[in-house]
Amino acid sequence: MKLQVTQSNLAKALGLTSKIAGSRGLTLPVLQNVLIKTDKNRVKISANNLDIAITCYIGAKVEQEGAITVPARIFHEFVMNLSSGVIDLETDGNRLNIASSSHKSIINGISAEDYPELPSVENPKTFMIPAEEFKRALTKTVFAAGSDDTRPVLTAVILHTIGKNKKITLAATDSYRLSHYETTISSEDDLKLLIPATTMSEVLRSIDENIDQIEIQYDDDKIHFLIGEIEIISRLLDGKYPDYMNLIPTEFSTTISVVLSEIASLAKISGIFAKEAAGGITIDVSAPESKISVRSIASQLGENVSELESKVVGESLSITLNSRYLVDGLNTIDSLGLEICFNGSSRPALLRDTKMKNYIHLIMPVVV
Amino acid sequence: MKLQVTQSNLAKALGLTSKIAGSRGLTLPVLQNVLIKTDKNRVKISANNLDIAITCYIGAKVEQEGAITVPARIFHEFVMNLSSGVIDLETDGNRLNIASSSHKSIINGISAEDYPELPSVENPKTFMIPAEEFKRALTKTVFAAGSDDTRPVLTAVILHTIGKNKKITLAATDSYRLSHYETTISSEDDLKLLIPATTMSEVLRSIDENIDQIEIQYDDDKIHFLIGEIEIISRLLDGKYPDYMNLIPTEFSTTISVVLSEIASLAKISGIFAKEAAGGITIDVSAPESKISVRSIASQLGENVSELESKVVGESLSITLNSRYLVDGLNTIDSLGLEICFNGSSRPALLRDTKMKNYIHLIMPVVV
Repeated sequence: MKLQVTQSNLAKALGLTSKIAGSRGLTLPVLQNVLIKTDKNRVKISANNLDIAITCYIGAKVEQEGAITVPARIFHEFVMNLSSGVIDLETDGNRLNIASSSHKSIINGISAEDYPELPSVENPKTFMIPAEEFKRALTKTVFAAGSDDTRPVLTAVILHTIGKNKKITLAATDSYRLSHYETTISSEDDLKLLIPATTMSEVLRSIDENIDQIEIQYDDDKIHFLIGEIEIISRLLDGKYPDYMNLIPTEFSTTISVVLSEIASLAKISGIFAKEAAGGITIDVSAPESKISVRSIASQLGENVSELESKVVGESLSITLNSRYLVDGLNTIDSLGLEICFNGSSRPALLRDTKMKNYIHLIMPVVV
Repeated sequence: MKLQVTQSNLAKALGLTSKIAGSRGLTLPVLQNVLIKTDKNRVKISANNLDIAITCYIGAKVEQEGAITVPARIFHEFVMNLSSGVIDLETDGNRLNIASSSHKSIINGISAEDYPELPSVENPKTFMIPAEEFKRALTKTVFAAGSDDTRPVLTAVILHTIGKNKKITLAATDSYRLSHYETTISSEDDLKLLIPATTMSEVLRSIDENIDQIEIQYDDDKIHFLIGEIEIISRLLDGKYPDYMNLIPTEFSTTISVVLSEIASLAKISGIFAKEAAGGITIDVSAPESKISVRSIASQLGENVSELESKVVGESLSITLNSRYLVDGLNTIDSLGLEICFNGSSRPALLRDTKMKNYIHLIMPVVV
């Protein structure tokens, strides 16, 4: 293999792939490496942790075809520190010679033949989704997925179709909170794909503003994202996702309208005091006074009460929520204002953006 | 105690003091707290870890004099998250009521009477030093001090006078490298003060661009820095500091002139490959070719050789240095260029800024 690439393209490709290499603590040494392989007038940089494989294509002047694998972390760190300009890559057996204007390095690699074959989807079905809309959906859902391997199905983001129009919808829940984002895109097929949230995080990292459309291919057990010059292939999760749509209330006994920055400040400050009380903060809604107050549960540290004027429709109420979940939920609101809707103190609170009706976030109260 | 302060002043004072409170893992609970005490039309915020005490004075509208201590970390985090504006502080026994426009909090404290008396210097001697010059001296020396408590004297920065003019000079060494910065300021008295590098780091953090002069008071075992509205009192270290001035060579068999950015890039990249070889990188100076090359010691990872044109005066040479020490040393150079001076491969290399002759940095070679 002999080729030339630019430092900036190579650094970017390694930034996206090197994190995957060796990320699952697998002992197979070659999985600590990235695969570098010529592909006509491009070069493919791939990493594979057997759950997920990422490939970046970058433009290259290829003088001689070939492939090699080299340690991902050190190669990335090295390339990042080179000055911008052209880099020559040339294999010499299982060694990779790297030459830039002032540096000559040799990195010991492992033969590309020892690298596990990259997974692919078989007889795939396909759909397209606008990159900007998909990015928004991911930003508002991925964080709510669980990380507890004892309930693997909750470590997924579910991508499914709902309603007559088969709107493509993303949702995630760790059973304490739930995010649900209905996109504007209709699908031809019925979809129900359980995609690992870790895969979705990589997809989110890979979408930049130059990407217009994302192509998604899937079969029974794998999914393939084509994001510009980046391809991500991941296994799908198996199992029965909770029928969460039934949990989303549509009528409420209390609805408050608040300014995002004000309620976010209250949630954050109350959370400081709530740390010793497992993060529980109590929201008191007073309908007659048109105000809410947020108080931390009294702890050894002291007490905290904060007040806020608010439009209140419905009954007065007192509910205790986990402050971190409230802060996380508020972080997904894009508008200046939002509504928080309640049905008493023991049923979930629902956050909804005043301007984005296709997104809702649900938080279960803490049972004190 | 009852008073009003601005959020920004209080947050800044807590930023400088709260890190000290509880920083030495001392079990006395009151040392986790900051002391808040009125002082005429100001309020003093103090922290004390028994090695070092910091006090910040901030302007206040004092309605009733008094004092209290409250947990430093939580009080700092709380105040940082309040919006800007006026904050009311009022004691109620050992509790502190905090009120801002929208928040009311109570923090449980400990009586100020239980707080250890802040140290003070007795019958001090005094000198002044321009803040900007002192900051420069600290930036170039503190990092070179040791952290090994088995040689406590090397955990100090030495502030002493040298030469007929009694120039105030700072130096620090961990025995592998040495920084020496001679200020432009002459002292009336002979000075030889061993100040903990940790204290000097706090002094460095406390100097902002509004400070013109720093007053330093000292007695036999304590030193007191008066930095605008901030006071830092620290113990001095005891012991015999190495007579390092004899170690600084004045004649060299080889001197190279290099561009800072170029040599810094080489040092950093070579260091990546050198990690497995305890950081050793070899610099080959070729007098006939007017160039230097930097190579990592061959490791399992591979090899790296980088070349650089350089003016060379004297003999060719090959020397192995620790890449991290070289990177640290290069970080202290302000000019675009520097000289590196050698006396063979087993004696220290000396870095000197082409425009700042009063500063030198010495690095011991690695014995391979």
